[in-house]
Amino acid sequence: MTDWTREREARDARIAAGRAFADGKVVARESAKALLEVIIRPGDRVCLEGDNQKQADLLAEALARVDPDKVHDLHMVQSGIVLPAHLDVFDRKIARRLDYAYSGPQAGRIAKMLFGGQIALGAVHTYLELFARYFVDLTPQVALIAAVSADREGNLYTGPNTEDTPTVVEATTFKNGLVVAQVNEIVDRVPRVDIPGDRVHFVVDARKPFYVEPLFTRDPGAITETQILTAMLAIRGIYAEYGVQRLNHGIGFNTAAIELLLPTYGERLGLKGKIATRWALNPHPTLIPAIESGWVQQIHCFGSEVGMDDYIRARSDIFFTGPDGSLRSNRAFCQTAGLYACDMFIGSTLQIDLEGHSSTVTTSRIAGFGGAPNMGSDARGRRHPSAAWLQAGREADPDRAPALRRGRKLVVQIGETFGEKNVPLFVEQLDALALAEKLDLDLAPVMVYADDVTHIVTEEGIANLLLCRSRDEREQAIRGVAGYTDVGRGRDAGMVRRLRERGVIRRPEDLDIDPLDADRSMLAARSIKELVQWSGGLYRPPSQFRNW
Amino acid sequence: MTDWTREREARDARIAAGRAFADGKVVARESAKALLEVIIRPGDRVCLEGDNQKQADLLAEALARVDPDKVHDLHMVQSGIVLPAHLDVFDRKIARRLDYAYSGPQAGRIAKMLFGGQIALGAVHTYLELFARYFVDLTPQVALIAAVSADREGNLYTGPNTEDTPTVVEATTFKNGLVVAQVNEIVDRVPRVDIPGDRVHFVVDARKPFYVEPLFTRDPGAITETQILTAMLAIRGIYAEYGVQRLNHGIGFNTAAIELLLPTYGERLGLKGKIATRWALNPHPTLIPAIESGWVQQIHCFGSEVGMDDYIRARSDIFFTGPDGSLRSNRAFCQTAGLYACDMFIGSTLQIDLEGHSSTVTTSRIAGFGGAPNMGSDARGRRHPSAAWLQAGREADPDRAPALRRGRKLVVQIGETFGEKNVPLFVEQLDALALAEKLDLDLAPVMVYADDVTHIVTEEGIANLLLCRSRDEREQAIRGVAGYTDVGRGRDAGMVRRLRERGVIRRPEDLDIDPLDADRSMLAARSIKELVQWSGGLYRPPSQFRNW
Repeated sequence: MTDWTREREARDARIAAGRAFADGKVVARESAKALLEVIIRPGDRVCLEGDNQKQADLLAEALARVDPDKVHDLHMVQSGIVLPAHLDVFDRKIARRLDYAYSGPQAGRIAKMLFGGQIALGAVHTYLELFARYFVDLTPQVALIAAVSADREGNLYTGPNTEDTPTVVEATTFKNGLVVAQVNEIVDRVPRVDIPGDRVHFVVDARKPFYVEPLFTRDPGAITETQILTAMLAIRGIYAEYGVQRLNHGIGFNTAAIELLLPTYGERLGLKGKIATRWALNPHPTLIPAIESGWVQQIHCFGSEVGMDDYIRARSDIFFTGPDGSLRSNRAFCQTAGLYACDMFIGSTLQIDLEGHSSTVTTSRIAGFGGAPNMGSDARGRRHPSAAWLQAGREADPDRAPALRRGRKLVVQIGETFGEKNVPLFVEQLDALALAEKLDLDLAPVMVYADDVTHIVTEEGIANLLLCRSRDEREQAIRGVAGYTDVGRGRDAGMVRRLRERGVIRRPEDLDIDPLDADRSMLAARSIKELVQWSGGLYRPPSQFRNW
Repeated sequence: MTDWTREREARDARIAAGRAFADGKVVARESAKALLEVIIRPGDRVCLEGDNQKQADLLAEALARVDPDKVHDLHMVQSGIVLPAHLDVFDRKIARRLDYAYSGPQAGRIAKMLFGGQIALGAVHTYLELFARYFVDLTPQVALIAAVSADREGNLYTGPNTEDTPTVVEATTFKNGLVVAQVNEIVDRVPRVDIPGDRVHFVVDARKPFYVEPLFTRDPGAITETQILTAMLAIRGIYAEYGVQRLNHGIGFNTAAIELLLPTYGERLGLKGKIATRWALNPHPTLIPAIESGWVQQIHCFGSEVGMDDYIRARSDIFFTGPDGSLRSNRAFCQTAGLYACDMFIGSTLQIDLEGHSSTVTTSRIAGFGGAPNMGSDARGRRHPSAAWLQAGREADPDRAPALRRGRKLVVQIGETFGEKNVPLFVEQLDALALAEKLDLDLAPVMVYADDVTHIVTEEGIANLLLCRSRDEREQAIRGVAGYTDVGRGRDAGMVRRLRERGVIRRPEDLDIDPLDADRSMLAARSIKELVQWSGGLYRPPSQFRNW
């Protein structure tokens, strides 16, 4: 007779083994390694919590120190490969297979290890896609997560950085898996219950805060006038043109410039209340002036941002907060909001090819996808209309019967024709293709596919790809905003002129923008210090951003 | 100076007013109406929990009885319009605006009220899309939800029907909203914590179980031989052809037939372990024989199904269950799984037009979308490959460079050429278009758009739309499986023959299927009683399905 509760029995046996290192559910940090050695089995799928922000760093280091004779051939299924320990587990042959989403700071090392064959790669995902697979074919057997505090029953308080935790725990614990949380401290009663204790099997008392990366902080002092020009173009040529109210911004100085121009340039154009009112966005410090000026109605966050906690607490009409007053973030829901409830995604990238495919991969660095492909793709399951979405759909397919014509998500790539270190943004062929060949991948790691991109913005102008009617037109529209890059110089001047006449390409002057006006004085805040002033002292930037 | 915590203060004032009718958080059922009258304000966005399964029925009835002088002009933002009370609130002018997803049993009445102008319609959504908007622009001010039990601190146990509850509560409570739960009973300690008490403001002691519709139960006794033939075609021509392992089934007898053929016809074809192993699916009773025969590795559920609770509890290796042993369902995560982690969606529909658009709307009935458009759409943000997905992508676009060629979700529409009451499945124009005109909607309510459908299966054969290279070919491929309907008889016989030669259309004989073999004896269970037997008596069908 089949035993249909084997997983549950195996889980209970592991818990029983782990109890040797615990007082109730509580484990001393010194015992973390020993605990992991008895509760993890070779071949397990393990989620080590960590994304582009919070990290279960103590548990990551403990896992990297386990005895590879006891624990080996793990299949890591996790959002982020961010800490050195995340790759050490592969170096030490504790882990073998990997499915993940984001590897920003380890982009160089992970590329080397993939080339070297130390990691057997499943796939690079977006966050939401990986979460989806947690419920279907990548369900973790063990989840190692991070929270701010726990009580002795295992109830967890994540504080403002709830992020992936509820999703990881739900997939693991309800499919007979084991959940171990590192917490900064054990308390008598948690300020709010982010994870109920009956989902948590062990709590490791880390006696120190888990690590959080201030990834979404951009110093206004570093914003260039070229970036300000691209921001003006985007506001006037896209935000205002489509009346975009619900949106997400990627990370980068171009979008930070947009945030800082809303209360100045945007105000002058009379756009307050008409654009950029509702956001799926982390609490970007550069959005503070727009919030304080009454531009923003609501923000839902993937995670928090270092230093923003007091500000958020004092602005609960804008942010989602808990009964304790602090931010409630949730990556799964915010990604869903970005996918289905936003009319625009705008972000930067490293390379754009002649069709409009873009990628952040270079031959020696694999940064992963994070959330961009999810939010930067047309959500074909969407059924509710909005003015911006309908207008984009109309532009893309003017001849179709309106009632059968879906709208389109606005997916905008913004950047300077020559990026950091003077590397051209536009290329004949993405480095991602060479990488796919080298690693024998089925698919090149494309961030946003050409058929999803609707606009490309550079200092030379806006290319509206929705209005292109052929492959040739698309290519020339892209070349037409590619400036002095090789791609830009390869343009067909006559065709680019005709595209401009049709409004497919729009130059600054076509939008009444004088590039000489693109001045740093237009920024609502020109420094981190001014952001602090805007916040009434509530924003407390991390030390690396304080220079006064 | 701006007050940035107005929402929170307003919420606290409402809670204070509600306390008059409560003992701590607990409210007697007799006081429910009075409570709602003081905690809901005119114009509020209100989510009355209910989808195609569970219903907060007591709170729905209480809301329908409030004094319209006190509570009016509500904006209802909820998954389901299912109970009469859901429409009574509009009749009584308590509510005015509506954004929703599903209205199966009220399809006729809601159509009438929309025509009559008693309801101001925002949009018809999919579940996940509506959830997304809860975090952006349709955040509820008040949520009226349902759970099995609560303790006096408000910790909730939802039992197997967790469904939408965590999503609704998260959006509401963390944005300064108010959460009222009806519960079957108040207990000292809940069997598991599905919703932490600090997110719940009032608990109404309903003293009776909330209503649950057994929507996913299909009596094998009602499956026809034509449906069995379509099921055989699908298994051999699609499941086997693409090696589909991760999938979702819609509701209907055709897909129920597939479930019941896996352990018989599927076994004979040697497909066990090769297809249909991992599911985003409710616990369909018709899947019991396949589970018992070892076909199924894992199922994640949107909700539960009446009568399946004991069976699920005893099969925890297959299902997601809680520490109490019972199912943990979650609609938001299961829809996400269906979107991003499944390679196929297959379901029935009411009408298919010549391009392949399909809809369940008729001019007098608006059933809503539920989850189908979400799962039945190509997820363009997907970045992980699978064999089935890559093969579909290859068929759709053979000439593109493989590394830049995304895969495709298989989206299959299955049905008989003449459906219930002999109504043809294929039409020249969808009734949805007439409806859109009549209601002045921006978009016709299309369930699955033509550009997302990959296959149409009828008893006449399979049309593989991925292989069509022109609009004409598409139309003839559809006509070529439309049988004796007007659409089918309008086919160009020569072109249909050529499409068949190319494998675009496949007849039963092309797949070695003899229609005479499509016999009810092939079903692994031919009655509800046999399903009970397969389950070893663990499945306890609701009384309307018991006739022995």
